[in-house]
This record gives sequence, structure tokens and C-alpha cells, in this order.
Amino acid sequence: MNKPDIRICFVGDSYVQGTGDDECLGWAGRLCASARRAGHNITYYNLGVRRDTSTDIARRWLAECEPRLLPDTENYVVFSFGANDASQVDGQQRVSDDDTLTNLRTLLDSASKRYRTLMVGPPPTVDDDHNTRLARLSERMQDVTIRLGVPYVATLPALIDDHIWRNEVRDNDGAHPHATGYARMARIVAASGAWWFGKQ
Amino acid sequence: MNKPDIRICFVGDSYVQGTGDDECLGWAGRLCASARRAGHNITYYNLGVRRDTSTDIARRWLAECEPRLLPDTENYVVFSFGANDASQVDGQQRVSDDDTLTNLRTLLDSASKRYRTLMVGPPPTVDDDHNTRLARLSERMQDVTIRLGVPYVATLPALIDDHIWRNEVRDNDGAHPHATGYARMARIVAASGAWWFGKQ
Repeated sequence: MNKPDIRICFVGDSYVQGTGDDECLGWAGRLCASARRAGHNITYYNLGVRRDTSTDIARRWLAECEPRLLPDTENYVVFSFGANDASQVDGQQRVSDDDTLTNLRTLLDSASKRYRTLMVGPPPTVDDDHNTRLARLSERMQDVTIRLGVPYVATLPALIDDHIWRNEVRDNDGAHPHATGYARMARIVAASGAWWFGKQ
Repeated sequence: MNKPDIRICFVGDSYVQGTGDDECLGWAGRLCASARRAGHNITYYNLGVRRDTSTDIARRWLAECEPRLLPDTENYVVFSFGANDASQVDGQQRVSDDDTLTNLRTLLDSASKRYRTLMVGPPPTVDDDHNTRLARLSERMQDVTIRLGVPYVATLPALIDDHIWRNEVRDNDGAHPHATGYARMARIVAASGAWWFGKQ
């Protein structure tokens, strides 16, 4: 029996890209490598872009996913963003919470009609004010996804008190961890039950 | 002194994507992980798409590279394709050699004006006829790149007699190796002198 030919696009920001990870896997690569080792025939497409907000992602996601997800393959999309939306430039939030939620609704509505879809919430940084905004945004994002019937994995509540995550982020650039932090985030996603291909 | 903020897009086909590699790195991920461990501040963007020919790549490469390569970062693009162009469907080659070379010329001309650019030639499969076509195409691609002043790394001549590459490709799907084969390919690119960030 042939195994299903699974294609997964991870669409999002620098955390999806795995910024700061010397192993060049991030949490998305670790999830896929682990699932491949468990026997799943997965093709891993990483479409994380540094500095991208939900507005940037709404603009590019479909044009980038379509050539990668074929009519005769089993297709999945995992979105993850929020940290750049909730960051401030010159005292101004880059994307308002309301606009983020509108983008999220539009994205997930369109994506979940085409592909099996999952949303992963933003992780914390070292900036307490940023984290307060992120925690509020993450909860509102979760409400939106529940109403659309798309699973949501919150990562901030588990990572905000995780010493490895905090230390790696602080020792790096204040936002991104190294390899071990990304491994923690991958485990949170896998353990949620929303990820389709087993625990880490 | 701050290290240069280096962004690299790898644009190409399934070999760029790393199809068949349970570690989800392929040759491109291995090159970047190795360079990061050596201290280079590299952001790794993998834009390999399975089944893509040079015609597909010509259509999408710039739209995908532009959001990833910023005005204030040090930007590199590595292209690699050819195996799908030279493959046959119903006795017909998917892209004629002449069209591949036209695509290559257009791509590299445009890319090398914007970014530091490198072309990596296609590796061999288990199909001798396919390899004969690929060897001829690879030589003609090299001629084009030399005329444009873009470095070219041929991989077929070294890999066609490489037992690990051949065995992994044969044991897998006839086209793609597993992890060790991709590690060999990464070493060939790094050892060529055309890769900017040191030997493997």
C-alpha cells in the first residue's frame, strides 16, 4: 500500500523560518523531520518570512502555496504569526488587533476550504509590554479560529515561563531562541493534539 | 562589530527542497547550517518546489525572493534546476534544452543584477538515458553561466559514480537520495569555491 503523499506549507514569520536556529530547522522543520522519521511521507515547505505581519502573509500565502500543493497530493497549511503585528514602531503598533483578526479570518476562511489548516499562536519575547499585547491578541485569535472550526495551538502560555525559551531568547536577540527553544515549541505543537502526525 | 545580516534564497526543484531527506535539510539546509555553525549570520530561505522546471521557476522566483531579500540586508540567490526540464512525459522532453537555456539566461541576467548569484547544476538519477540528457544539458548550462559571469557548480560528474548517491537514490524513488546523499551534494557545492561561506 502506498503511503499518502503529504505536502505541508508552513506560512508565517521569522519563528516559522526558524531565525536564530543554527540547525536551520526551527519548530516547523523539527515537526516534519520527526514525522518523517515516524514513517509519514511528508514534503516540508517552509514559507516563513522575517518581519512579516498578517497583512504581508495575506498578500502572498496563496500565490506561494498553490504551486506547492497539488490536486493529487494530501495538502496541509500551518499558519503562524502575530509577533510582528503586535510590535511597535515609533510608538505605533504595526497592525492593530482588529486588523490582525480580520486578516486571520480572511486567511483561514479561504485556506480551510482548500486545505487542512492549523493556526499556531505567537510565542513570547523578552519584552513584557510586547508579551502583554501578544497574550491578549493570542486569546482573541483563538476565539476567531474556534468560530471558524480551525484548530489553534497557543504557545505563549507555555513558553512565557519556560526557562530554556527565555534564556535562549535573551542570549540571542531578545525575540528568537536557538535550537532548544525551537524544539520546545515543536513539542508544544505536537502535544496539542491539533498536529496531525504524532507527538515529538 | 556587527556581522553582516545575510539572507539566502535557494530557488529550484525537489533537490533544493530536499525531497527524500528524513532530516528535512537537503543540500541547501546543510550548507546553511554548516555556515551558521562557522559563525555566519545567515537566514535560510528554501524555495525549492517539487516538479518545477526552469519555466515554472522563471515565473515565480522574483515574486518569492523580493519579500525575503531586503534593501538593507546582504542578499544571495542560489538557483538549481534541470532534472525536470530534461525528464520525459509521453516520450516528450518537458522543456527543450534550448528553452531551458533561454530561461537560465533570463533568470541569471535579472538575478545577478540584484543579488549575488550562483547556479548549481542538476544531479544524476538512476535512469541512464535521463543522465545522458542531463550531462549534455549541464554542460550547456555551464557555458551560459560562464558567459554571464555567474559561477556554476556541476554536480552530475562527481555524483554519477558516487556509490552512496547511487545506492540511496536507487533504494528511495530512483531520483532522490536520503540524508547522506544530500550531505555529499552539499560538500560538492562547498568544495567548489563558488559557495561563499566555507567548506563543509
